[in-house]
Amino acid sequence: MHTNSKGLRLDPHGLLKDVAEVIDRETLEPLVGESIVHPRQFTRRSVVALARLSALLETKNVEVDKPLDGKIAITAFFEASTRTRLSFESAMLRLDGKVLSVPDGQVTGIAKGESLADIGEMFNTYGDVVIMRHPDTDSVDRIRQNLQRPLINAGNGSGHHPSQALIDWFALLKWRPQLCTSDCPPDQRVHLGIIGTPGSMRAVKSFLRLSLMFTGAVSKITLISELADPVGLELTEPIEESPIPIEIVNDVQEVIGDLDVVYVNSIAFLGDDYRRMDNRYKLQQSSGLKENAVVMHPLARNDELSVDLDLTNHNLYFAQAAGAVFVRQALLATVLGRLDRISSTGI
Amino acid sequence: MHTNSKGLRLDPHGLLKDVAEVIDRETLEPLVGESIVHPRQFTRRSVVALARLSALLETKNVEVDKPLDGKIAITAFFEASTRTRLSFESAMLRLDGKVLSVPDGQVTGIAKGESLADIGEMFNTYGDVVIMRHPDTDSVDRIRQNLQRPLINAGNGSGHHPSQALIDWFALLKWRPQLCTSDCPPDQRVHLGIIGTPGSMRAVKSFLRLSLMFTGAVSKITLISELADPVGLELTEPIEESPIPIEIVNDVQEVIGDLDVVYVNSIAFLGDDYRRMDNRYKLQQSSGLKENAVVMHPLARNDELSVDLDLTNHNLYFAQAAGAVFVRQALLATVLGRLDRISSTGI
Amino acid sequence: MHTNSKGLRLDPHGLLKDVAEVIDRETLEPLVGESIVHPRQFTRRSVVALARLSALLETKNVEVDKPLDGKIAITAFFEASTRTRLSFESAMLRLDGKVLSVPDGQVTGIAKGESLADIGEMFNTYGDVVIMRHPDTDSVDRIRQNLQRPLINAGNGSGHHPSQALIDWFALLKWRPQLCTSDCPPDQRVHLGIIGTPGSMRAVKSFLRLSLMFTGAVSKITLISELADPVGLELTEPIEESPIPIEIVNDVQEVIGDLDVVYVNSIAFLGDDYRRMDNRYKLQQSSGLKENAVVMHPLARNDELSVDLDLTNHNLYFAQAAGAVFVRQALLATVLGRLDRISSTGI
Repeated sequence: MHTNSKGLRLDPHGLLKDVAEVIDRETLEPLVGESIVHPRQFTRRSVVALARLSALLETKNVEVDKPLDGKIAITAFFEASTRTRLSFESAMLRLDGKVLSVPDGQVTGIAKGESLADIGEMFNTYGDVVIMRHPDTDSVDRIRQNLQRPLINAGNGSGHHPSQALIDWFALLKWRPQLCTSDCPPDQRVHLGIIGTPGSMRAVKSFLRLSLMFTGAVSKITLISELADPVGLELTEPIEESPIPIEIVNDVQEVIGDLDVVYVNSIAFLGDDYRRMDNRYKLQQSSGLKENAVVMHPLARNDELSVDLDLTNHNLYFAQAAGAVFVRQALLATVLGRLDRISSTGI
Repeated sequence: MHTNSKGLRLDPHGLLKDVAEVIDRETLEPLVGESIVHPRQFTRRSVVALARLSALLETKNVEVDKPLDGKIAITAFFEASTRTRLSFESAMLRLDGKVLSVPDGQVTGIAKGESLADIGEMFNTYGDVVIMRHPDTDSVDRIRQNLQRPLINAGNGSGHHPSQALIDWFALLKWRPQLCTSDCPPDQRVHLGIIGTPGSMRAVKSFLRLSLMFTGAVSKITLISELADPVGLELTEPIEESPIPIEIVNDVQEVIGDLDVVYVNSIAFLGDDYRRMDNRYKLQQSSGLKENAVVMHPLARNDELSVDLDLTNHNLYFAQAAGAVFVRQALLATVLGRLDRISSTGI
Repeated sequence: MHTNSKGLRLDPHGLLKDVAEVIDRETLEPLVGESIVHPRQFTRRSVVALARLSALLETKNVEVDKPLDGKIAITAFFEASTRTRLSFESAMLRLDGKVLSVPDGQVTGIAKGESLADIGEMFNTYGDVVIMRHPDTDSVDRIRQNLQRPLINAGNGSGHHPSQALIDWFALLKWRPQLCTSDCPPDQRVHLGIIGTPGSMRAVKSFLRLSLMFTGAVSKITLISELADPVGLELTEPIEESPIPIEIVNDVQEVIGDLDVVYVNSIAFLGDDYRRMDNRYKLQQSSGLKENAVVMHPLARNDELSVDLDLTNHNLYFAQAAGAVFVRQALLATVLGRLDRISSTGI
């Protein structure tokens, strides 16, 4: 029912079988009532726990239990993004929560004469959780000066977009459940390529942070970028500390034939404007992908991905998008402390 | 309670009495799960069935049965229209459905870097039905490339606006229930006048399509327009095939005294801009309407209709507007397969 | 739980103890089904009754009784105000009501070709109560030409903002419950200062109207303004008729040390634009406030109030904001005739 129209279709049951406890409450407990602002708040274990919970939500009709009954989310989008806003709002509504929507905080006057700190104060009595997107990286800290409710960072400038990274890994783990553990059979491990600029683009930066946690499953990461330094300051240490080997190349052709997973988000933020990569970085059927390689993209795709990939089995991006609402359901149910209303029996 | 403040007030009971089955499930069944994009999907029989269902919903408090419980509609308005958007959203909420709202798709970034096909793919997991308005006529086809949920076309460029035409006919059938059948008594048949340009304006085009189905009830149709060809390509065949005589005139005064129903929507889309008709086409108390003639308008009225008609019994347009939410309830309950939750007993 | 992050925290229980009937249904009954457009519709008694009802709603979990089940509010904001809109919408959702939202009526086309009278007609069938903000003072009269549902005026040009004034007095009465009665002990009476221009600014105008009703509680009112006549036409009579002495000064320093309550909203509407008062009118820790004086502000604060007051006990404005949703819940439950669903037992 809830599946994508084209490309690979992923079965969530693979993540649920042979698992001692489908809902790993012990691992998720520390996230109850917490803000979700940065991928470093997650561990490989909690990423897997959230993916399993998402798979459960995809599999089972939990709506009848009204898990978020009486809870209100505020979606405060100071930078418009219909895709992300509707995805969170759908997640709330599907679990019988409610939504206060600010589709475009920049134009509807919320920012006139109000600091983000004052907006946070206002939100304390309006809702139970705040989902914010904002063009400024420090917006997360500013609103949290007064905000006493959990905040979910849905993108802060060139900062992070943690729920997107969870969505990306939910797709990868559904596609190949063996990646959950560090004793993944060698022939199931993946060589992961990222076409983009993790240093300045939040989606791919958050994805890389999570990917570095999957040792023994990701055999190698190749960054493909035309920039001299696509990595940036924040990622330097996590990359150095990770046992996963990382290389940087600037020619897609050089590596494409060796990649099992290709994550594309080739736009880059330079100075104060966006710059698209050269056409050479656009992926299409003729790009020379490995037979079983999958292509990921956080979408919107702009010109980065040819539609000629849509009907192929390389297309994991539609399945990735199709999982977004379940991941956000899992995150909201966890943060709002309503895991007890979700039963794992009868899947 | 749910009636208009001024003008004719229509009693929905006339549509419900002496009817074998109030809800004609057999006729409505083919619409379950279907997109509603063009008036040719309807027959006179299904128009009457939907009007009866609308009358039932107007008469009876069905909200307690929560007919659309658990269903989510996405209102995707790439061309802003508060009237139509709120009308659909009210219909969803009244039946206990839920709404994801995109009040202005053009400015909130939904269209940045995303094709309508990709937007359709995204909507697959967000909602259960999509209600779209878009300035492009081919938008309906484009979004349906990937969309697997029913689409309700709420206006596509110069294309169609099928739910508006149903609303128009709901008002006409409440006003004169004898029009439901082809053996309408001759003195109850109507000479219908349309001031406008069906060829390029979707509301009046859809209305004309439905009107052509009401043989034996509509005795004659007169199009009143200052354009040489107000009909356009699409309507040529249906007009030729219909047994209802059709004439075109360009002087309102010539025919006004003979019309039983005057439908006004005189704005025209020419080239790439709107053009209002001349002031001569504006209707008012002094226009010489027949004593019992009724005036219809899809609203907003702009300058086409004088407020001096509001307090008269010519004013059917307020009653027409007052029926909109019920028709959209009927359409949504049908498309979403929830007619079984609506009982026709106890009206 | 629902309290502010900084400044004074107000306990609603003070308003509920030693009271014969917590919900004064007799006083509130005349407001059922009525529009709320002007503070003159209130009496001191109904202000106190609404404050007690708000305190009850703050104290008790009434959501389980779904007091506004099946009711739809339309928030029609022709002038954007996220703070006020979300506050009303949260109030509806908290009581299980539903919302049709028009975040920005000016840009989403609602006003194109439609008079406010026609918009009022449209709203008759869409919702059960309309909450409107509009830049024109006469907008309230215009929409009510056809609107048959209760209207709550959420700000009409330089007119009024009655719910804001109720919020202001809810905070004052929670802070000092003795102000409810005219036999308030002399040492508990307050000298109230208003930095602003009640004549042209709706929030402070509505607040002053209510304040004039609190004889025997407000011992004196001082208006502080750089304008020659900050009072304007409408307020002249109420001020003359009130037994509360009123003075006008233009130097904050002259009176600040004598004020128990300082209400700040120093922006002024002059001609057709806003003018901010001089920096001398900005309040801060070093302004020489009395030790126990409290500062109020309807927010957004712009530059009128220094953040260095936030952490002090002068800060009543955060507590004031924290009460807004409860007051709007009380108002909506009253207007929509659902007081019978709110029980005053078990507080």
